[in-house]
This record gives sequence, structure tokens and C-alpha cells, in this order.
Amino acid sequence: MPEEKAEIGIGLIGSGFMGRCHANAFASVGGLFDLPARPVKAVLSDASERAAQDAAAALGFARGTANWRDLIADDAVDIVAITAPNIRHEPMALTAIAAGKTVYCEKPLSTTVASARTMTEAAEAAGVVTSVGFNFLRNPMVTLAREIIASGEIGEITGFRGRHAENYTADPDAPHSFRTDPQGGGALADIGSHIISMAMYMLGPLAEVSADCRTLYAERPVAAGASERRPVLVDDMTHALIRFESGVAGSLEANWAATGRTMDLSFEITGSKGAIAFSQESMNELRLCSGSGARAGFKRIEAGPSHPPYDRFCPAPGHHLGFNELKVIEVAQLIEAHVNGGACWPDFRAAYEFQRVVEAMQHSCSERRWITL
Amino acid sequence: MPEEKAEIGIGLIGSGFMGRCHANAFASVGGLFDLPARPVKAVLSDASERAAQDAAAALGFARGTANWRDLIADDAVDIVAITAPNIRHEPMALTAIAAGKTVYCEKPLSTTVASARTMTEAAEAAGVVTSVGFNFLRNPMVTLAREIIASGEIGEITGFRGRHAENYTADPDAPHSFRTDPQGGGALADIGSHIISMAMYMLGPLAEVSADCRTLYAERPVAAGASERRPVLVDDMTHALIRFESGVAGSLEANWAATGRTMDLSFEITGSKGAIAFSQESMNELRLCSGSGARAGFKRIEAGPSHPPYDRFCPAPGHHLGFNELKVIEVAQLIEAHVNGGACWPDFRAAYEFQRVVEAMQHSCSERRWITL
Amino acid sequence: MPEEKAEIGIGLIGSGFMGRCHANAFASVGGLFDLPARPVKAVLSDASERAAQDAAAALGFARGTANWRDLIADDAVDIVAITAPNIRHEPMALTAIAAGKTVYCEKPLSTTVASARTMTEAAEAAGVVTSVGFNFLRNPMVTLAREIIASGEIGEITGFRGRHAENYTADPDAPHSFRTDPQGGGALADIGSHIISMAMYMLGPLAEVSADCRTLYAERPVAAGASERRPVLVDDMTHALIRFESGVAGSLEANWAATGRTMDLSFEITGSKGAIAFSQESMNELRLCSGSGARAGFKRIEAGPSHPPYDRFCPAPGHHLGFNELKVIEVAQLIEAHVNGGACWPDFRAAYEFQRVVEAMQHSCSERRWITL
Amino acid sequence: MPEEKAEIGIGLIGSGFMGRCHANAFASVGGLFDLPARPVKAVLSDASERAAQDAAAALGFARGTANWRDLIADDAVDIVAITAPNIRHEPMALTAIAAGKTVYCEKPLSTTVASARTMTEAAEAAGVVTSVGFNFLRNPMVTLAREIIASGEIGEITGFRGRHAENYTADPDAPHSFRTDPQGGGALADIGSHIISMAMYMLGPLAEVSADCRTLYAERPVAAGASERRPVLVDDMTHALIRFESGVAGSLEANWAATGRTMDLSFEITGSKGAIAFSQESMNELRLCSGSGARAGFKRIEAGPSHPPYDRFCPAPGHHLGFNELKVIEVAQLIEAHVNGGACWPDFRAAYEFQRVVEAMQHSCSERRWITL
Repeated sequence: MPEEKAEIGIGLIGSGFMGRCHANAFASVGGLFDLPARPVKAVLSDASERAAQDAAAALGFARGTANWRDLIADDAVDIVAITAPNIRHEPMALTAIAAGKTVYCEKPLSTTVASARTMTEAAEAAGVVTSVGFNFLRNPMVTLAREIIASGEIGEITGFRGRHAENYTADPDAPHSFRTDPQGGGALADIGSHIISMAMYMLGPLAEVSADCRTLYAERPVAAGASERRPVLVDDMTHALIRFESGVAGSLEANWAATGRTMDLSFEITGSKGAIAFSQESMNELRLCSGSGARAGFKRIEAGPSHPPYDRFCPAPGHHLGFNELKVIEVAQLIEAHVNGGACWPDFRAAYEFQRVVEAMQHSCSERRWITL
Repeated sequence: MPEEKAEIGIGLIGSGFMGRCHANAFASVGGLFDLPARPVKAVLSDASERAAQDAAAALGFARGTANWRDLIADDAVDIVAITAPNIRHEPMALTAIAAGKTVYCEKPLSTTVASARTMTEAAEAAGVVTSVGFNFLRNPMVTLAREIIASGEIGEITGFRGRHAENYTADPDAPHSFRTDPQGGGALADIGSHIISMAMYMLGPLAEVSADCRTLYAERPVAAGASERRPVLVDDMTHALIRFESGVAGSLEANWAATGRTMDLSFEITGSKGAIAFSQESMNELRLCSGSGARAGFKRIEAGPSHPPYDRFCPAPGHHLGFNELKVIEVAQLIEAHVNGGACWPDFRAAYEFQRVVEAMQHSCSERRWITL
Repeated sequence: MPEEKAEIGIGLIGSGFMGRCHANAFASVGGLFDLPARPVKAVLSDASERAAQDAAAALGFARGTANWRDLIADDAVDIVAITAPNIRHEPMALTAIAAGKTVYCEKPLSTTVASARTMTEAAEAAGVVTSVGFNFLRNPMVTLAREIIASGEIGEITGFRGRHAENYTADPDAPHSFRTDPQGGGALADIGSHIISMAMYMLGPLAEVSADCRTLYAERPVAAGASERRPVLVDDMTHALIRFESGVAGSLEANWAATGRTMDLSFEITGSKGAIAFSQESMNELRLCSGSGARAGFKRIEAGPSHPPYDRFCPAPGHHLGFNELKVIEVAQLIEAHVNGGACWPDFRAAYEFQRVVEAMQHSCSERRWITL
Repeated sequence: MPEEKAEIGIGLIGSGFMGRCHANAFASVGGLFDLPARPVKAVLSDASERAAQDAAAALGFARGTANWRDLIADDAVDIVAITAPNIRHEPMALTAIAAGKTVYCEKPLSTTVASARTMTEAAEAAGVVTSVGFNFLRNPMVTLAREIIASGEIGEITGFRGRHAENYTADPDAPHSFRTDPQGGGALADIGSHIISMAMYMLGPLAEVSADCRTLYAERPVAAGASERRPVLVDDMTHALIRFESGVAGSLEANWAATGRTMDLSFEITGSKGAIAFSQESMNELRLCSGSGARAGFKRIEAGPSHPPYDRFCPAPGHHLGFNELKVIEVAQLIEAHVNGGACWPDFRAAYEFQRVVEAMQHSCSERRWITL
């Protein structure tokens, strides 16, 4: 008879886009990965009792509550997953840390660098496991890119060119949302943080930045179709020059008014002996150029079982992974770290570092000069 | 307090590639779709008691058994999902039909047309719901393609060009597997059936076929690295001319020795006013050319929440669906049909029709002539 | 002082699309290639004296004439370039052959196989140099493809998949033109001959064909906007199964009603160790997959100076060649053969073989059976 | 009898890469364009008498000379085409201007902004026609892009993202050439000027720049294979932030060490209602996204006769133009301007403006701040 696995209780705060995505990941991960413990959907908290109980039933949690402090305090909860609005991340995380729970927080870690630092230092002092939902980093093709760089296969790295472009505020009449609130932070904080995290995952810490943040439309409707307009206080588009600590130079762009683009999270990394290129628009492939001469050229490497953990999802190549499965990988790594105590990068410390870069870019734009990190 | 949903018990036969895929789909579907009932993983059967119990534990089924008849007979089982070897589909399905259960069978429906007909007629006589796992048809982009054709947007259809190409026997020393067994049926039956199903989903029944089936290597090793070789009795590659009942002409190819291709399930459908093109290699996009003139050209339509049921998985565009999620869609449609009694295409009847085409092509090749269906 | 090069007199019959293209090629080739002689634009003939003199002036020929026999007889003419309507190729070519001139004829060689054979035998009996304008074969990327196959780099060849698709009769109201005349021969003869020539250039002679030729619209307007309609007696679209003498199987399509395609002259050739893919839509690149394993994939090889005779046009890679330059290459090879007496493939004999395949396919369709060549 | 056209005498200085390219363009242009006059290849000058006479013979010029002053002074020369090393552009152009000749100069106009201004002011004072060889701007697809922007079809422009990346110094052991000389100016001056010219052609004058120029390798071999190394004093790679006078923000990159890229001269321009994307890697297509909603997406517009002057080269779409034909277009526009007196953009003034931007970027990097133009 098979050994009974230990259970890990999940407490999920929030049931919006990311909340549902977390719930699905916890539901799937056990059947896909050979984990040291089995996640159990214990408690879900939401804005009201009714919403919490409906969501708990729909998403398969044992119970719902309107009180997130109650969720954190529940002995059945081992991992606290935070998908609440950014402004509430800090109190929730600090409470969970104080309770000694593992904390799994959606990105961005917080709304200010100071807050992110407080959270990071608290977590490190308490020694709890943390993880932040930069799910695009979990893509096997992104992992492969990093391995290719680290192996020296494309030689000495000479340049980076990155972008995260979406189109959801391209329309001048697109209304305000939580994303266009100063707390949301603007295009740079919201989606630029993804390409920043990617850059740092690939090539290490940044040393200096010079950025140009731009608000395209001074005002937007307060809601869809509303005639009342409110000023926009965040950037719609940021272009930045960057220098890594290694000396590598490059550029990146965050843009949420990029008509024609729904998820161009992309990069090209150039080395003395090769280059790699990736875009989330074709998330199951990596383009690699190695060697030189008359037949050099980018080739398309497709995701397959040789690129772990693709093999956990499918034993054959050519069967694409989807976005939601990146979240399953994230959750699998979190459970491993929770049980075995290892790191679960990007943790709070890493997310805090990404946020420092965002803030340095905003600072650079205000002062119109290079900022050293 | 939310209404308690009825439960539907799932009995899964087999825990290989497709068995795991089914299990994962049943685990996920409830949190993603607003279903009329909640699937419960009741019984899993496998080749031995030990294997069945291990798999049941790993995949979250209430119990395991080595006896599939016992699984079918279990009152806790409402839907019997068959992922066993093709040769066993018939007895399993007939037993499940006799028990009045809904039957969800992996493709191909059976190893011969005669057997597929027997299964189809039994299911129709008993009035049970059936579904066959041609999962690629569930892709929202494929559904969109069909809608575009049906709407007349690309005019009168004039041509079809399709292909399913993979590379897993490209190496002459690739060993035999169940796929190269006559029961597996060869490239045409194994993967050609996907592009045949796609062609018929898009453009309706076929009227005539002329095919050229080819076995590339007369013998293959009996196992990886073995010196002993056994004859190959199935095709590695089939090219076919087709005519639809509508009069549309076209061609298709099945090829599992297509070096460089892991999943080129692709088609281009041409009409008098436009054209559409799709490949599973970019499964989250459909290319559409509409209109004519100096600016006509194929455009890339990305999967998004306007293409249901993408919206069940993600509220924003650009977040790709993966292969496994096609199976979740399949399972959602199955549960809907199970509860509400509607059709769940492709059912046994449709799968039998696909198989008739496969057999007609094999027949055409043997006789070197066109075969009327 | 540089040695004075011998001059070769060019006589050009016709000044339409291809006539202009020839004239431009003869004007350019001397400055680009290091030829054994210098082409001189001697005589141009056209339908009327006026047209001939205007065209001669515009295209830089020494004189114009309405009499092509006079052009051929002119001592100043060494090479007779025929771009007149297909039906007139035979008398022109036979006259030129009788005069011992080198003959450069546009494709197709003639309107019937019998006529093409007559022309071929006359040329061979007279020992004159011949060349037929299958210009797409002159592309350095196509030459590279052939070299890769010949070198064994992609192993034993197992399959061919080809197509020539354009869209110029996609509109049911597109009027008749010389192309839709029985003399034009239909889509198969007009553009299918290009993919047939490509297939044979790559993989050698064909042994057997089975084809399905289809006329999409029974009638077309006699002219643009005309209400009078005339029956269409040629195919708009042909799909064919092919077997090469080597045993390789494959398929090809000719389609001039392919909405969305203006020049999809494309092929994918699969071998046991690799594959190559090409489309005229990206005529300056060849995609090559070599090797297998987790990182196999098609790579993009760009045309460059390592792929002769690209180097004659540009010393740096990435500077694309255009269609007209394929004609310049054709003309350079013709002048080499004219002076040094070597072959200039595809010559009349090769073009006659292509035409035999076209006719065999038409025959196959009429009789609904395989035809052995 | 057709009217005899006036002749325009061409004097070509230099017979390297660009010299040959000019010669070919002058040889072809008459048969392709309906010009107001006929170019005649009059005089070619090169470094020595022998070289000049050989090149004159090979390229079809009436005579050769080692003395460029003699070429300019020759009454048979109406247009002076300068393809000599950059450092010699100024004296040659000033001499030609003084002689009242039309001047056609390869890019960059000169090695310093001061020199470029001198040349520009001299030309304007003398009222001679000038043209500078930024040939990529002559592409019909680029013209189409500009028209689409100007028409308002993609709405208010919000962002620019551009790049010119090649790979010719990617190898750390690639030797010095004239390009790596301070007179060559580095990657920014040499190839960055192309993407700068493209940006300004599309969106007008630049207002401010902030750039990061980087030399990747401190020293390079003095010649191929040489052990002696000399310092590299120019940039290999520049990333820049830009602001147009219109307020549009963006970024651009110049990089000649971009492994895997031979000619990625590319841009994406985003508007409130659409976007366009282009790369020289697919120089015969423009990608256009217009509109929004579930079916928005980039479509591929292929070059064709509706995009003048493509029609001068070919009456049918899908027959690609090549790089050399961009030069033919440039020369056709030059001859039009020479005869009819109109502007021939980009003229010396425009090229001087591009150069001001290059210098401002270099200045910005040295001072690590934004520079206002």
C-alpha cells in the first residue's frame, strides 16, 4: 500500500484572476509533480463572507472567511498565498511571517521599496520560506536560456535588449483601474517588473539605470464609459538604459499601451559566440544562434521533456505548456522549499531588488540622470 | 450558503500519458468551469493491484483496482474514461455501455472499422453519452476557424491542405513501440486521424480519397538498442488526395518520421474571399486573411477571452493555453453532456467516421485507386 | 590596358513582363559577373514596328523589328531570347536552332509535350546551347538546399512536400487571360511547373504520379468587368501524389486561387537525419534542421556571400537578393555556356521532362489512376 | 520614331562595395523607370590609373582616371557619385559643388558634424541638387509605413522602438577595418545612422537624446590573424533613449556585434489605433495592426505593384525586390531631381541632421546626461 503523504494546508487570500490561478495550481500540482507533501485547499478569504464562501465552494477550499487574519491564524494553514490588492500585501505578509507561516505573495511584493524591504527583513529574521509570483521565470524555456548563458555556450555576454509590452491602455478612453492607480505603480511597476526580473535572472544584478517614463494621456475616464475623468499619475510607457554589475549594457521597455501586443515579454541576449531570443508570444520556444559562419542563424528549440519540468506535464515534445502551468511549476517549487527548507527564488529578497530597480528608474526619470543602484 | 453541487464519479482505466492527462483534467475542471456537477475521482484501474493503488494515490483517486470490470460495475462510477491500449477499447466500452455508463474513450476509437461500428451502434442503441479524445479539436482557435468558415467570411471554400507531422520514428533505428504495431495502426491511424478529424470538423464529410502509404524502413529493432529486428507492417508516412462531399478538393499528410517536426498538426483552408491557416506549433494563434487588394495578408489572431472557453482559464489575452488545457475543455464538455444529455462531439459515431476514412485510405493505397466513402 | 572582351549579341523577342526582365538582366549582368564575353543588346522584336522601336529605345537595344525571323537571321544576334506567347515558342526556337543560335526560352517550353520534344530533339541534333527560364532554381538558397541534400547531411531522404500557390484567380469574377487559355495550360502548367522543376532539381526524376485537377469556376468573364462569360477549360488547382525514381514519396500542389498567397513556392524535404524547408515568400533564407535531440530545430540560414553567386551582387550578408536578380544569374549561366559550351540546366531536355510530368498529372486526373512516367 | 532622350553623364568616384552598387543602379535604371533623361556611365575614378581603367572596363564606364578632380571637371559628367572613404567626402563634394554638379554622396555625409554642415551650406548656397545614400529609406514598404502613419490610420503615435544590428565585429578577434577607425565613427555612426534616418523619416525631428555607447573590446588585431593589436576608439554598441519634437518617446540601438543578426534594421511604431513593424530581415513585407478587439493582430502586407515604385520592377506581387534595387530607386529619384530640380530627400541637409543626432548621442554618453538637439 502506498505511503500516505503529509498534507500541507493552503490558505488563499483573494479569488480574482490570480486567486483562481493559484487555486487551480494547487489543485493540479499533486497529480503532476512527485512532491514531498500533498497540498490541501484549507481556507480561502475574500472581501465578504458571502464572496468567500462562494469562492471556497467553487474553488474547492474547505472553508471561506471574510477575515484574512483568521485565515492566517488557522492551524490548518501552512502556506499563506496572498493575491489581494498590492497595498494590502505588507500587513498580510507581516502577519503571516509573525505566525511562522510560509508566504507566497503575488507580484509586485509591495507598493514601495521601503515596504518591500520591511517585508523582506521580517521574513529573513523569522526564517520563513517566501516566494513571489514572477511566474514567467518558471518557464522551462527561460530556464534553458539561463543554462545556455551560464554554460558559456554563447560566449561572453555583450548585450541585452528586453521588453514587456501589452495593449490594455492603448485606447485613450480606456478607464482607470487598480493598475493606473499610483498604488498599482504604472506600466513600469506592473509589467516592467517582469522584464526586469527576467534581465536579472539571466544576467545578474543591475548597477545603473537611466529611464524615460511617459504618461501618454493626462486623464482617463474614472470608469468605462464615464464622462468624468481623473488625472493619470503613473507611466504608460518607460524606456530605460541599463548596465549590469558585470558591465553588460542594454535597454528595456515597459509599455502597456502597445497596440498589437498582448504579451510581448521578450528579450534578446547577445554573446561573443552566440545569441538567444525569447518572447512570451511563443512561450514554448527558444531561439538560439550558436557558432558563426555561412550557416549560422537562429534556430527554434521547442519545449519538450528534456527541458524540465516540462516532463512533469507531458512525456512528448510539441505539446505546449500554457500560462497556468507556469503557476503550477511555481507552486511545486514552493512546496519543495516549504518541506525541505531550500530557497524558492525569486523570494522576497529578490522581489525587493526588482522593486529597487523600478524605483531607481522612476527616480532617474524625475531627475533626468543615471542612477546607481 | 452556496448550493451543494451533485457529484459525478469518474472511473479511469489506465495511468499512462493519457491517463495522467485525464486525471489532471478532472482535477482542474471544477475550479475553472461553472459545471452542473462536480467530478469526483472515484476509481482507477491499472494492470496490477500495486500499479493501480500507486496510481490512485498519486493521482487522487479514492481507490485503485486491477479489475476494470469491477471499476465499471462500481456504483460510484458514472463516467468511464478509457485510456487502455487500443485493442482493449472495445470490450471495455461495450461493458460500460451495457452498464449504462457514459463512456469517454481515447482515440482511436478502436483498431478496426468493424469494431468501431460495433461500439458506435451499441452506444447509440443504449443511448449513453460518448466522447472520444480528439483533444486538438477543442482548441478555441480551432473553434474560431470553424466559425469563420461557417460565417461565410472567407467566401466559398475552394481548397484544403492539411498535415500532421511528428518525428518520433525518423531515426531508422528507432525501435518498435505499440504505435508501430499493426494494432497501433501506423502513422495514418495514429496521428493522421487528427488531421482527418480536423478536416471533417472544418469542412464536413469526405466523399473520396486516394492515398499513398509508405513504410520507410522494412525492419526496426524490437527494443531500444536491440540487435534483433522485426518487420514494420504499418505506414510511416501517408500522403492523400481528398474530396469532400461539398466538392472541395485538397490533400493531407500523416508523417511520424518528419525530422524537425514535433507537432505540425496544421492546415490552410482557402476560400474565394479569404483564407485561414493554423498550426499546433503555434496553438494559440490563428492566421486569417480576409479581403483582397494591396493590403491583404495573413494576420495573427491571438487566443484571448473573446474566444471561449479561453475565458475560463484566463481573463486576459496573451496568456497561452497549453495542451493539457485542451483536455480540460474536453472534460468540461463531457460533463455538460453527461448531466444535460446533449451531444459531445466528436462522439463514437464521429470517431467511427474518422476511422472509415483511415481505412479507405489504406484500401486506396493497396488498390492504387480512388475509394469512395 | 584591360583586354577587350568579345561581344555577344542578344536578340530579344517580346517586351512584356518577362521581356523587360530579360532586358534588365542583360543590362546588369556584365557589371556583376566576371563573364567570358560582354552581352550587347542588339535587336528587339515585338508585335508591331512601332512597339518594337519604342521598346528597343526604352530597353536599350540597338534596333527594333516587327519581324522575329529577321531578328534571328541578324548576324549581330548570337543568343535568341524568346518571351513571346507560349504557342509561338516552337516556330521561333526551331528557326533559331536552324540558324545555329543559342536559344533562351521562357517557360513553359511549349504548349504540348509533343512540341517540347520536337524542340528538344532539334536542339540536341543541332548541338546548340539552350536554356529555359525556370528562374527560381537559380536562387543561391535553392542551390544550397540541393548541396545539403547531395552531401548526405540530412541523411537518406524520406519525403517531399511542395507547393506553388498564388492568388490571381481567387476571385470568381477574375477575367480570362492568356493563362486561363488552354494554351496557357492552367495552374498546373503555369505555376505547378515551378514546383515540379524544384522537386526534380532536388530529388531527381519522378517515376509515378496521381493527380486531382480542379476547375473552381465553370465560367469567367471574357475581360475585366465584362458580362459575357466563357467556359474555363483549365485547372485552377491541382493536388498530386508523387513518387520519385529513388522511391521517395511526396505530394505537391499547384494553386492560382490561393487567397492570401502571392508566391508560396515552397517545399519541405525530410531526411532521416535532418530536414530543409524553403519558401519563395522568404526567398533569402533556407531553414535547416540537422541533428536530433532536445535542441534540434529549424534554423534560419540567411543568404550571404558564402552562397555563390550571392557574392557577385553583394559582399556582405543580410542584403537580400530580389526576383530580378535570379534572372541575372540565369543569364550569367547562359553566357558562360554559350562561350564555353557547357550545359545550362535546365535546358530544353529538362524543361521537356517537366512538361511530361505536367501532362502525366493531367492524364492521371482524367483517368483517375496513377500514371507511370 | 521614339524621341531621343537627353543624356546625363555619370562620374563615379570609387569602385568598392558601394561603387559597384552605384554602377549597377545606373546601368539598370533606364530600362526600369521612365526617366526624363538617360544616364550614361562617363567617367570612373579610383586609387590608381590601373585600378580605374580596369574598373571602368568592368563596370561599363567610358573612361577611367586616377584623378577625381579631373573626373569632376569633365564636361561629360553631370552627376558626381562619391563612394570614396568618408574622410574624402568633403573635399570631393565641395569641388563638385563648386563646379555646379549634382552630388550623390554615400552615407555618412562626412566624419564630423562641422564638416557635414560645411558641405550642406555650400550645396545650398550653390543651389545644386544633392542626395545621400540612405538607401533603406527607398524601400516601398518603408514608404508605405510612412504613408500609414501620415494618414492617421494608426491614430496618434505613442512610441518608437528601433534597431540596427549586424554581427561583423561580434568576434573579439575580428580585426580593425575602416569602420573601426575613428573616421568610420563606430557602430552608431556607421549603422546607427540608418535607424536614426528611419526614425526621423517616420516621425520627424528629434528633440532630445540620452545614449550609452560601449566599446566591447579594448583592442583588436590590426589585421586578420595579426598578433599586433591596436586600441578600439569607437563604440561597438549604443543604446539610446529618444524624444521626438512631437513628444513621442522611444529607444533605439546600434550594434555591430550582434551575433545572429546580419541586417536587423527594424522598427515598431505604436499608435493609439494601430501599430506597424518592419525589419530589413523581411524587407518585402510590412506588418500592420489596425483596429482593436478580439481579432486585432499584425498582418503581413507583401510588397506588390500597388506600392510604388515596386511596379517599375515587376507587374505582379510576391516577386521580391532586393537590396540593390533600393539603390536603383535612389538613383531614379536623383535623376528626376537633377532634371526637374525638385528635392531628393534625404539630401545633404537631412544627412547633416542625422549626423547631428549621432554626435549628440556620443556627447550624451560622454557627459552621462540628456542632450537637447
